[in-house]
Amino acid sequence: MPHSMLSFLDITPDSHFPLQNLPYGIFSRPGESARAGVAVGDWVLDLAVLEFGGFFDHPLLRGFAPFSQDSLNRFMGLGKPAWQVARRTIQELLAADNPLLRDDGELRGRAFHPRNQVLMHLPAHIGDYTDFYSSREHATNVGIMFRGRDNALMPNWLHLPVAYHGRASSIIPSGQDIHRPYGQLVEGSSTTPIFSPSRQMDFELEMGFFVGPGNDLGRPIAVDEAPNHIFGLVLVNDWSARDIQRWEYQPLGPFNAKNLATSISPWVVPLEALEPFRTPGPAQEPKPLTYLQSVGDWAYDIHLEVQLQSEMMDTPLTISRSNFRYLYWNMPQQLAHHTITGCNMRPGDLLASGTISGPEPDSYGSLLELTWRGERPIPLPTGEQRQFLADGDRVTMTGYCQGKGYKVGFGEVTARLLPPAG
Amino acid sequence: MPHSMLSFLDITPDSHFPLQNLPYGIFSRPGESARAGVAVGDWVLDLAVLEFGGFFDHPLLRGFAPFSQDSLNRFMGLGKPAWQVARRTIQELLAADNPLLRDDGELRGRAFHPRNQVLMHLPAHIGDYTDFYSSREHATNVGIMFRGRDNALMPNWLHLPVAYHGRASSIIPSGQDIHRPYGQLVEGSSTTPIFSPSRQMDFELEMGFFVGPGNDLGRPIAVDEAPNHIFGLVLVNDWSARDIQRWEYQPLGPFNAKNLATSISPWVVPLEALEPFRTPGPAQEPKPLTYLQSVGDWAYDIHLEVQLQSEMMDTPLTISRSNFRYLYWNMPQQLAHHTITGCNMRPGDLLASGTISGPEPDSYGSLLELTWRGERPIPLPTGEQRQFLADGDRVTMTGYCQGKGYKVGFGEVTARLLPPAG
Repeated sequence: MPHSMLSFLDITPDSHFPLQNLPYGIFSRPGESARAGVAVGDWVLDLAVLEFGGFFDHPLLRGFAPFSQDSLNRFMGLGKPAWQVARRTIQELLAADNPLLRDDGELRGRAFHPRNQVLMHLPAHIGDYTDFYSSREHATNVGIMFRGRDNALMPNWLHLPVAYHGRASSIIPSGQDIHRPYGQLVEGSSTTPIFSPSRQMDFELEMGFFVGPGNDLGRPIAVDEAPNHIFGLVLVNDWSARDIQRWEYQPLGPFNAKNLATSISPWVVPLEALEPFRTPGPAQEPKPLTYLQSVGDWAYDIHLEVQLQSEMMDTPLTISRSNFRYLYWNMPQQLAHHTITGCNMRPGDLLASGTISGPEPDSYGSLLELTWRGERPIPLPTGEQRQFLADGDRVTMTGYCQGKGYKVGFGEVTARLLPPAG
Repeated sequence: MPHSMLSFLDITPDSHFPLQNLPYGIFSRPGESARAGVAVGDWVLDLAVLEFGGFFDHPLLRGFAPFSQDSLNRFMGLGKPAWQVARRTIQELLAADNPLLRDDGELRGRAFHPRNQVLMHLPAHIGDYTDFYSSREHATNVGIMFRGRDNALMPNWLHLPVAYHGRASSIIPSGQDIHRPYGQLVEGSSTTPIFSPSRQMDFELEMGFFVGPGNDLGRPIAVDEAPNHIFGLVLVNDWSARDIQRWEYQPLGPFNAKNLATSISPWVVPLEALEPFRTPGPAQEPKPLTYLQSVGDWAYDIHLEVQLQSEMMDTPLTISRSNFRYLYWNMPQQLAHHTITGCNMRPGDLLASGTISGPEPDSYGSLLELTWRGERPIPLPTGEQRQFLADGDRVTMTGYCQGKGYKVGFGEVTARLLPPAG
């Protein structure tokens, strides 16, 4: 580990939040207003306190007070040079050999909060939320189930990163539970719907990235420029009501099946922290059109896990192990495609990957696939089994990159499925 | 006309903006900040000036300064009783027999601006934009073209108001021109896409409503309560690239074909102003599920027109005459369906109707339908003809309700299609 990555804080090798990470989030303490912080070890470093103390007095940050806001939108909008200045500053302040914070007990008392004692909020006001469909394995699995093996992938799928616009208002931070939704669904092959709570509640293991500066309407972001517009990543659970989805989705796509809630992890891991974990993505054949040709490696080796815990279980059971690098379409391609029409991105927009399924059955990112539409229920250690989620089930997703002697982690996104609201 | 609807202002019977209307908008004058106004005759009544003058000093409005904001979101969020107070106050101030404004030359000078001398902005920060698909004629026409007459309507269509989430960032006010977008499209029956400017640019004649107070996540809005959450309506042009749409839309719905831009008229006509024009909607058979059963008449008799003007034409040509009352699914049903899963609505969310086509071929609300996918080009008086839009074409949509001796109008939404951006 480079010396500069040693901190005066005690951070274990298993921590998701060493100096190599430094993810940003919005937190509050009882009776105080929300503001920006960085997760480091078991602590939250209070960036508003440091900002007020003049530690970010740099031309690229000065006058913006980006960390004394109740969202990261302003900071996201400042762009990569400003992000780099902030990150260097924070890394230096936390370094083992820097006495500035280390030896100032009063300041340390104000600047560090135990991470388990703060309330985490959404990291940004999300103007628009887009959900891609970029895992070939997931699209193929779903295609086989709905249309048979020969027509599993639509003709467009290998040519463009398919996506749809999602609902921004119902994106919630980890820890906020959701209710099983009501809606229209059909039984068997009936075409007469009934009104019922969804009977096929599912999760989708995804990741999403927050947009930085963005673009003006009518001015696409080129694929080579796209990385400069990616602020950082979070874990995403795209809750899905499969029975509602099956009935409603033609011809305009999923709507009520998805808009009930989308959960995200609260700590935004900067793209820069993921730099050591870049890796080649899947070969793309046929070759994409020029505007989608990204140069270099734009997949990331991020281990992902889904855990399920029923009300009867004492500890969660890991039911899926996947990896972000399985995605066929990478983030620069997603951003280039999304804006090729001139569609404008704004700081804080969230672009999610779609369900991240791997090649093996235990790496599928949804119950729909893991149980193959319910045909192969998952046995739980309590003797229970699951085709889809039951009331009281907790779904937790985690993810991390494994460095040499350290992790760059995403923490978790967790929530319980409660019974239908009364 | 009731005496109370006579104003000291000179308003012609053809004006879209008599005292019966009083639509809200956000305007600015050179060098001044944006604020709320009401269109009346050829004038904008400056609500921020009146607010500062204490004319809205009422318990339901006091302290909120709803009209000194650069959006109507706060006002929308205050709810129906507050909207009623504001509307009564403005109607009284403008009444012929009220000397308060009428005889105060200095105040009148500050409170009225010529409407053609202000710049109009979006009326709200639109958190989420939803586009329905609620015209049976439109869905049937498109269905026939894509799937044949026997399978024109999907099995779900008569059971629920089909919708998709749209892109909020690219909603623009009337008058802002757009560029022909680039994208992927396929020629003929090819499944190998090319990269090209869209060759099938189209408009869609729609209307949309702005949401008022809205609901918390997990708490649906009942169909009977829905009218209290509808602030008012605007005209919507949902620009569509048909060739991009045809290639991309399966299985998740339209994406890049629509996110290039959506134009809306700047004046939001309050639902209350439309009350005299309520009329029965189409019979709904089969009977919708209980949560979608609205009681009373929830269609509105709003005459709609689409005009096309090529660069060679001196005056626009009306190419479609439709009516908002043709819509199969009404606004309360749309809102009840959208929230039945618990999806939360926020003040300023925009819910659009989908293309409003009538039963006759000259009442279709898109070129796709008017030219029947290009098979029946529209002749223009210059000798030109149109299958889809050409560069330089201006599309203008207007709409109004016809009262006895007055109109409640929507003004217009207009924009030109410019060549692809360089």
